[in-house]
Formats: sequence, C-alpha cells, structure tokens
Amino acid sequence: MKKNATFDIPEGQYYLCGHSLGPASKQAVASLQQGLQGWQQDKVKGWSTQFWLDLPEKLGKALAPLLGAHSDEEIVADSTSVNLLKCLLTALTINHNRKIILTENDNFPADRYIAHSLSAIDENITLKSVTAPELVDALDDSVAVLMLTHVNYRNASQHDMAMLTQKAHALGVIVVWDLSHSVGAMPLHCSLLGVDFAVGCTYKYVNGGPGSPGFIYVARKHHNQTPVIKGWMGHISPFAFAQVYQKAAGIKAYLTGTPSILSLKALEGALAVFRDVDLEQLREKSMVLSQQLIDNIDSCVPQLTLVSSRDPRARGSHVAYSHPFADKIVTDLIANGVIVDYRAPDLIRFGIAPLYIDGHDIEKAVQILVKSMC
Amino acid sequence: MKKNATFDIPEGQYYLCGHSLGPASKQAVASLQQGLQGWQQDKVKGWSTQFWLDLPEKLGKALAPLLGAHSDEEIVADSTSVNLLKCLLTALTINHNRKIILTENDNFPADRYIAHSLSAIDENITLKSVTAPELVDALDDSVAVLMLTHVNYRNASQHDMAMLTQKAHALGVIVVWDLSHSVGAMPLHCSLLGVDFAVGCTYKYVNGGPGSPGFIYVARKHHNQTPVIKGWMGHISPFAFAQVYQKAAGIKAYLTGTPSILSLKALEGALAVFRDVDLEQLREKSMVLSQQLIDNIDSCVPQLTLVSSRDPRARGSHVAYSHPFADKIVTDLIANGVIVDYRAPDLIRFGIAPLYIDGHDIEKAVQILVKSMC
Repeated sequence: MKKNATFDIPEGQYYLCGHSLGPASKQAVASLQQGLQGWQQDKVKGWSTQFWLDLPEKLGKALAPLLGAHSDEEIVADSTSVNLLKCLLTALTINHNRKIILTENDNFPADRYIAHSLSAIDENITLKSVTAPELVDALDDSVAVLMLTHVNYRNASQHDMAMLTQKAHALGVIVVWDLSHSVGAMPLHCSLLGVDFAVGCTYKYVNGGPGSPGFIYVARKHHNQTPVIKGWMGHISPFAFAQVYQKAAGIKAYLTGTPSILSLKALEGALAVFRDVDLEQLREKSMVLSQQLIDNIDSCVPQLTLVSSRDPRARGSHVAYSHPFADKIVTDLIANGVIVDYRAPDLIRFGIAPLYIDGHDIEKAVQILVKSMC
Repeated sequence: MKKNATFDIPEGQYYLCGHSLGPASKQAVASLQQGLQGWQQDKVKGWSTQFWLDLPEKLGKALAPLLGAHSDEEIVADSTSVNLLKCLLTALTINHNRKIILTENDNFPADRYIAHSLSAIDENITLKSVTAPELVDALDDSVAVLMLTHVNYRNASQHDMAMLTQKAHALGVIVVWDLSHSVGAMPLHCSLLGVDFAVGCTYKYVNGGPGSPGFIYVARKHHNQTPVIKGWMGHISPFAFAQVYQKAAGIKAYLTGTPSILSLKALEGALAVFRDVDLEQLREKSMVLSQQLIDNIDSCVPQLTLVSSRDPRARGSHVAYSHPFADKIVTDLIANGVIVDYRAPDLIRFGIAPLYIDGHDIEKAVQILVKSMC
C-alpha cells in the first residue's frame, strides 16, 4: 500500500478512474462498519440512538461546501435520475406557462430519458435538444427549464455555468444542473450563481461507493414551493401519520421514502475526507496533473487523439482520448495496473483525482501506455 | 446469544419489532462485507467482476417466491414510495380514460402522499378515499386504480386481496398493492391472483437492513407497456448511451438510476435466509405465537385493549393493543428487553416474526409486561 492515510491503493496500481467510481476511503469503510454495527446491536432503536433519519440532511450539510451552497439547500437521497425527476416536475410547475425543456445533444442520456418521462406525463412538454454552441441562441422566453450536465461524461467539456445561468435567468428560464462529473473535483458556486436546482451522484469524485445515493440542491428562493412529488420523509411530521400531505420546511420537502441507511453511512465517511480538502487547491492540482498527462502523451503516444479541450478551464477532471483500438488499449492498461475506462466506440478516459493520485501515477501510467502501444 | 444460527439476538432480549425493522442475519452481514470488499479491492472493475448490475434482477428473482410471482415479474430498486409513483403513473396511462385512484382512509400515509403527487401532476386525477368496508361499493368503472396496503400498519387488519383484486378487475380497475407489511411474513399469490402492480419494502419481515431498497412487481401482462418514468438502467442498452430511450424487455424497464450496491448486498444475504423457509409454516407459526400472546395478555394484562382482529386470517403478522399510557408502557418494555413499538396516540405493536422468536419470547415478553403494569 502506498502514499496516503486516506485511501488504500495497492502498490503497482494507478487508479485513473475516479470519474466513474471513486475508491473506498478508510473513513467510508469505518463509517459503514459503524452503521452495520448500529443495525446489528441497536436494531430498530438505531433510528433514534444512531440518528439515522438525520443523515439525508446531515450529509447535505457536509456536501454544501462542495456545491458552493448554503447548508440548508441540499439533501442526499434517491438516485440522480429520481432527483432530476423531482426537480423537473417542480420547475415546470413554477414555470407553468412554458412547456419546453432545453438541453444539448450530448447531455448524459439518463437525464434525457428523465426529460422524456415528462413528455409521457404531459404531451405538451417537449425536450428541445441542440448542440452545445447553439444553446445560447436557443434560450428564449418559451423555454421553461434549461437542463444541462456541467461536465460532459465523454470529452469532459465544461459548460460556463455562470454565463448560462445568467442568460437563462434573464429570460425567466429555470436552470437545473447535473453536477455528477463536477462535485468533489472542483469548486462550485451554486448559491452565488443563483442556480435554481441541481442534482448529482456521489460515487465518482466524492467516493461514496458503488451506486451511493444522489443529492438534490434546491435554492432557498424555491423553498416555499411545494414539490410535485410528495414523499413521506418530506412531510412536516412523518410520524404523525397524517392523511394529508403537508410539506416539511426547506429542503427536507424533497425527501421521498425511507432513506437507505447503509449506503448513507458509507457516504458519510467519504464526505468526512473533504473536511480537510481545499477545493481550489484540489482543482489546481488536477489541472497540473492533467497537463502532465497531456504533455507526456503528446510526446510519447502521438497515436492517441486528444478529444478533451487543451484549455484546462474548459475541462472537468478527466481527460479523454480517441483511438480506433481504444477498447484493446484499455484492456491492456487495466491488465497492467492502469485503471482507466473505455466508452464506445473509440474513447479512453483518464480520471485525474488528486485525493489519491499524483505525478508519479501519471508518469507510470504513461510508461505503461507506451509499452502497451508497442 | 441464543437459539439460532441465522440471527444474533442477545440473551434477555425479546425482539418483537420485525414489523418495523428486521434484525441483521449473519448472511446479510456476510454479504454486505463481501460487497464492501468488492468495492475496496476491485473498485470500478467490481461492476463486472462482482456482477453488481445484475443485483436488482437477481434479488427480484430471490423475492419472487415471497410474492408468489413469476421470477421475471419483480426487481429490487429505489424506495417503496418511488416504486409506487412508477406504478401509479403507468397504471393511469393504461387506464387513461379514468382519473380516480381509490384507496381507504387508513392506507399508509406515504402511499396517500404519492397519490396526491399524481393530482399535482394532473389536476383531473383525484384520490378517492373511503373506509375499508366501503371499498367494494366504491369500486365502479370510473375508478382507474385501486391502491391499497394489504396489511394495515396500525391494527394489522388484512384486506382480502383475492376478492378485491377480482372485483376490481371485473370493473376494469387496475390494482396496485403495497405489500410492505406482508412480504416475508406470509405466503402471497400475486401472479395467481393476476395482481397488476405491487410494491413494498424489504426492511421489515425481509430483514434487509434500515431503509433497504424497495421492490416493484409488474405482472407479465403489462410488460409491453412502456413505463412513464424512463430510467437509464431501464434502457434496453444503458451502455450504448443512446440519445433516445428504448425500454428494456420485461421488468427491467422499471429500473431508474444506478442501484445502491451496498444496500443491495445486505439484502442479498437477507433474502438468502428465505431459501430454506416454508412460508406456509412460517405463517402458521406466526398465528400460533400471536394466539399465545393474545391468550396471555387476555388473562394477565386485561388493561390492554386488543385493536387487532381475533381472527388470525384477518390479521397480518403483528398484534396491536391500545392503552392510554401506551408510550410509557413501551418505554418500560424496551428498557427491560422487550422490543416493541409505539404509534401515537395509544398503540403498542407486537411484531411476531418466527424466524427469530418463539414461544419462550412470548412468555417472557408477557411476564415483563405484567411486571411493568404493576
């Protein structure tokens, strides 16, 4: 094992896949074990002795600095897709005279499918899809919601969140950002920018574990709005078992069913790691390491074609290359300890997560890549 | 520790709370640890080496005998509330000329709140709520969906699922059953009865852990219907990342986002326990133990008023009593090792789960109850 007190990455493994699934921190493992022990020992009493029902809000508060949001604007619950559904339904209620959800062609397909669900609910609602450069011109006062993923899952291209949010707001358009590929990898400024809604996953750069719960951010200005999806845990008093729904104050209203405690416990530990992390420094380090990777591949493996931007501010925290035999290259790299991933038809993605990788990993990864290309 | 190789219940504890949260079986603990190890060691490769993405369907198949359903009619995913939302939206699409959801006044409030969500989505959709005895007369051909919880969370009263399903179908009404308080406690016959949709939780009698994922059952006859909520994991080919949604075949179409693997792993072990369980015998034993409890309380603690039916076939697997000082009695019982629960304003619930309790537990529980009433 090497290098840091937080993650156990075996010697000889170079884990460049944090854009897909982050590794287990010692804190995440310990917290999960504590959750398990709570269930084993306290059983049903765990709901009170272990404060399990506080976890969605507590983890929301822990996540707030990562989103650049007030600590009462986010909770951890459900999956990104279900949270996106909640946001879109409520956003379309707020902007009830408009029926268009605007997105870009390359938005993550899962988000597009959820938007399609809205059309199945109300045939007047349509998903309008344009290329990224066409977005600004496509924004007009017929658009109800601008739904975008901040960092593209394929080429890592990053939208200008500030500019697009501002343009949208000037036209009365509500913005919903999917931050799955951003959170935990760079500073974000949801509250400052007045972002209306945001969602995302916690299993990539936040290292919450496979399929760890999603989060939902709702700006304070929308907290008076009753969510369309009315969940038991979002009731003002769930254990009054009232027949009629009355929303909880604030972000809690966006809870649905009973939260998945074991998954939340792992995530609690994962988020604890970020208490000592300066996101500006983390991002800076990610850009330096990404540049090192790009420089080394430029000079040693020119057969690969960079599909991510060369401008670090236009990229998220992974770097993507194309090659006709990308799948074979990725298989070789993984077999030799360089954990990257492949996206059909021809993409290799290198995830740069400085919480557990450094310049040595980049150097070794490129050395192994060079060998495998011979 | 006592009695059985499956559950560690400490000596001196009488766990009569399986109707709320089941205890951890050794299999559930081992399976969760295996899942954690898979994440720690394999990281992103776990998706293929550990077959994580197969879990929702695999656990659905393990759950099928508990539901009395074909093995391709259920998956484990999301929470009961989110699954109910999926069912209602799709059921209302199938019966698109009708706009009434019929339920009973005492249905679990969470389910009522989800039905209210439908009215927020489409103001023509209304929740019609009657008393349980009025249900049959309230069924007519204006009703789109009959939405009921099989076993009542308070008094354990059990609906006649066969009769109500048949009456509903005769009038073209789709049935959606919430089986949260039934599954794992008694034989069910979803497929035989032609039940259209069912949902439920797995943290009560199935012992999946606090907030373990819910399940959704959709009868084969509805598998051609495209679900209204279109999730990434319900796409025919999620990793093709196609812009347009195309539903997966069968029950998989009801998946949404990335499944919560750690929670699913605990549940996998919990469900393994049921491989050796005869549900008819389990139910028989539960009825015998419930009768023992009722007889003992009748003779020793007449101050408590039985609110559950005296007919075992009209009850689920818990027995409820009322008393003006129910909260104090429950606090005393718990302090003395008898784990039961309290529901405001005056209910004490005794959960009878023969997987880990027997006649000795009942005897001791009543002895301790007698003492605490002195």
